[in-house]
Amino acid sequence: MKDTLNIAEKSTFFLASQENNNKFQSMDDFLKWFENKRKNYFSVEEIPFNKLDQWYFTPDRYSLVHQSGRFFRIEGIKVKTNFGKLQEWEQPIINQPEIGILGILTKVFDGVRYFLMQAKMEPGNINILQLSPTVQATKSNFSRVHKGKLPAYLEYFIDTSKSKVLIDQLQTEQGGRFFKKRNRNIVIEVTDDIVVLEDFCWLTLAEIKQLLKIDNFVNMDARSVLSTIPLIDDVVLNEIQHKRLCNLTELEINNKIYRGINLDLIISACTQITDISSKNQLISWYTDMKVKYELETTQIPLSKIKNWDILDSSISSDDRFFSVIGVKVVADTREVTSWTQPLIKDVHIGLLGFIAKKINGVLHFLVQAKVEPGNIDVIELSPTVSCSNYNYLIENQNERPPFFDYFLDNDNVNVLVDVLQSEEGGRFYQIQNRNKLVVLDEGVDFNIPENYCWMTLNQMMDFMRYSMFNIEARSLISCINFCY
Amino acid sequence: MKDTLNIAEKSTFFLASQENNNKFQSMDDFLKWFENKRKNYFSVEEIPFNKLDQWYFTPDRYSLVHQSGRFFRIEGIKVKTNFGKLQEWEQPIINQPEIGILGILTKVFDGVRYFLMQAKMEPGNINILQLSPTVQATKSNFSRVHKGKLPAYLEYFIDTSKSKVLIDQLQTEQGGRFFKKRNRNIVIEVTDDIVVLEDFCWLTLAEIKQLLKIDNFVNMDARSVLSTIPLIDDVVLNEIQHKRLCNLTELEINNKIYRGINLDLIISACTQITDISSKNQLISWYTDMKVKYELETTQIPLSKIKNWDILDSSISSDDRFFSVIGVKVVADTREVTSWTQPLIKDVHIGLLGFIAKKINGVLHFLVQAKVEPGNIDVIELSPTVSCSNYNYLIENQNERPPFFDYFLDNDNVNVLVDVLQSEEGGRFYQIQNRNKLVVLDEGVDFNIPENYCWMTLNQMMDFMRYSMFNIEARSLISCINFCY
Repeated sequence: MKDTLNIAEKSTFFLASQENNNKFQSMDDFLKWFENKRKNYFSVEEIPFNKLDQWYFTPDRYSLVHQSGRFFRIEGIKVKTNFGKLQEWEQPIINQPEIGILGILTKVFDGVRYFLMQAKMEPGNINILQLSPTVQATKSNFSRVHKGKLPAYLEYFIDTSKSKVLIDQLQTEQGGRFFKKRNRNIVIEVTDDIVVLEDFCWLTLAEIKQLLKIDNFVNMDARSVLSTIPLIDDVVLNEIQHKRLCNLTELEINNKIYRGINLDLIISACTQITDISSKNQLISWYTDMKVKYELETTQIPLSKIKNWDILDSSISSDDRFFSVIGVKVVADTREVTSWTQPLIKDVHIGLLGFIAKKINGVLHFLVQAKVEPGNIDVIELSPTVSCSNYNYLIENQNERPPFFDYFLDNDNVNVLVDVLQSEEGGRFYQIQNRNKLVVLDEGVDFNIPENYCWMTLNQMMDFMRYSMFNIEARSLISCINFCY
Repeated sequence: MKDTLNIAEKSTFFLASQENNNKFQSMDDFLKWFENKRKNYFSVEEIPFNKLDQWYFTPDRYSLVHQSGRFFRIEGIKVKTNFGKLQEWEQPIINQPEIGILGILTKVFDGVRYFLMQAKMEPGNINILQLSPTVQATKSNFSRVHKGKLPAYLEYFIDTSKSKVLIDQLQTEQGGRFFKKRNRNIVIEVTDDIVVLEDFCWLTLAEIKQLLKIDNFVNMDARSVLSTIPLIDDVVLNEIQHKRLCNLTELEINNKIYRGINLDLIISACTQITDISSKNQLISWYTDMKVKYELETTQIPLSKIKNWDILDSSISSDDRFFSVIGVKVVADTREVTSWTQPLIKDVHIGLLGFIAKKINGVLHFLVQAKVEPGNIDVIELSPTVSCSNYNYLIENQNERPPFFDYFLDNDNVNVLVDVLQSEEGGRFYQIQNRNKLVVLDEGVDFNIPENYCWMTLNQMMDFMRYSMFNIEARSLISCINFCY
């Protein structure tokens, strides 16, 4: 459990190191440090539901719950919508009504901005450890509903009077797997000295952007927070536009020297002047989508979900889909307790893909308004393509969603991002999506269905502040860097 | 019923007049035209529930509903919240899940922008007729769920391909009386010729702003749409700032000459440069309020609402509060059918008040984050003071909300707006709120509770686009004009 682990960490990992420790001279140094952390041995094994400790099915196998009533519940829902081809279905879903905190501390050392990141274990993680935000905490953690110590650094996110809140937004999680789940995504700037605990380190945004090119390295919670950080702010943009005239080949952004940066793409994606749709037009389109599409969900017993069965070791349907399993986590270091919990498993790799294209010389992204059963208000803005079973769709051409074919291996597109990223390991068991950003030639032209719309990166970042983009889109946005 | 009336209007009022008709040389001409409309005689009388036609209580008097299942329902809810002093109560509430359209057509004639407004009867209106938007329609209307003709001009709001959408936003109605009700607020610019039907007329924004100074003249739906129209846009603001250097005493805004305009206040309220809180800081405060406050509502039978009784002619509680009544509408013109319906009645006048103050030379408004039972997502942004029984609070000093005393008759404040405005006459029976904007001296200083925040008018207009302001705040914003 995430909560259990936080308590354990706090109690034993509190080994103060120098404040300036855990910054790295090179990416190799960092990777060595990180690999070294993996040596703490954890094993995760699938177990049948009746071996789960403290988790049980409620009467008539209505839901799968924890005896404390905390953490999360696995429930069944019946979904009706007028969106897409499949307009009625039933499925299991995770219900976790608490709003959590995903927080990153940032500090400027000698003119260079760093972010405090954590090498954190989660049972569903591919490779066990992934790079995580400074803090991942549930409301139970920080409102002290239960006993036990607080997660490290949580105090900075509870009492912000001594620091500066740079970003603080409510953002949602996967509407296909979570029922109306959202977290507070926070970036706090501190100026006082900070003790860097073992398993934490300072990284610059440029370094993190490099790590986002490595498969399954930066966890979903970190990507969620990172997506809210502007690639460059207006001040830097002005600077770039000014320096561009000097044929600059290296550039200082976010206090970090970039070499070989694609100035043209950055300016093009972040410009506000020459976007093809005004903010009012985009809000009108968004309003239209919210009114046009309908979503109705009703809770039903897990045991009655059509086409799904509760087996000894899984709640599952057709092999094409996800399943619910139980796992047991064992650590051979004495720091971490052993525990069991349910997880969502999906052996199929999904695809999250944005198409981008210059329109009137300005880079625009093709955004989809999408209905998913756990959405808080019917639609959320999504990547151009978002699907959970890439290989199945490669083999079944008829079932492909619009624009899928641009993400097949294709000589005619410029691939800027192509990386496997994991879903959150506290709820998902080794689930990966291929995150892909392809840029089409300005000449490529096609009609777009009514629930798609072109936006610049600046427009997307602006709308993101109002919780309009889903985690799938934000994951992909976090990977964008325009640097070679 | 609103719907019935629309059908009747459409069928008989389709008396084409010249396009340029129904523009007026003076406010007197307009008021003569409008008074003349009142001659169509309607009477509205209170009747007992058992005389309601087609409306009935469901078994165990659970809800009060229309036999068609359309229109709206009166239901009971139990409310729990951690906001304010009273944290648990029960009350009746209107449930009308459809998203309606409130739309205004606009057109520029000879360089002057006009808005197409309607003299419209509603049973709950004070003075029967009030100035209304071009279109008020429910989704049943425009999706043709029922038979009958469409409301006049609705086609412009359904097919926008030939016109320009200037504004198109989802906006909520009273969270204290409606359960999660919202409408699409739309302003459409047309360039082609338009037939002006009887009961419709063209008015400039300056003329409408003058009419907003008359008690109970412009209806709530019109105020809701008008609040979304920027007082001046950035282009005009630049123009003002430029001309200010010339000691201008008259000014053309929105294609209309203003005399005696308070340039200083306009520039001050709309400036973006010197506001005391950045957009990110305001979003952080808004996020904090949404996470901090909780709201839980459960439907209960009308007959079981604590401290409320279903009587022959009303559902009522203590005299201090609103009640639900039945009314019968009779018209002596053959155009309009007679009908009966429930309405919400409240003989007490409410207060909606904004405090404004220059901070660092820039006008800021004191905005409240408020929980009301019908809110869609826990909190909405509200005027500084918003209460339903002004006189009761004058007499009961202990129960006054924060900042109430600034709205008592007071020599130390500059009153910019002070007018009685009606709630929507299709659901509310002669309910009025005193809308008051007071400007304090820059020197006046006080601490504000955590659920209050200072914003410039520009920041408020920006957040309004994302459905963050409630109808009470928007009603008051619609009355702001800064002209003498």
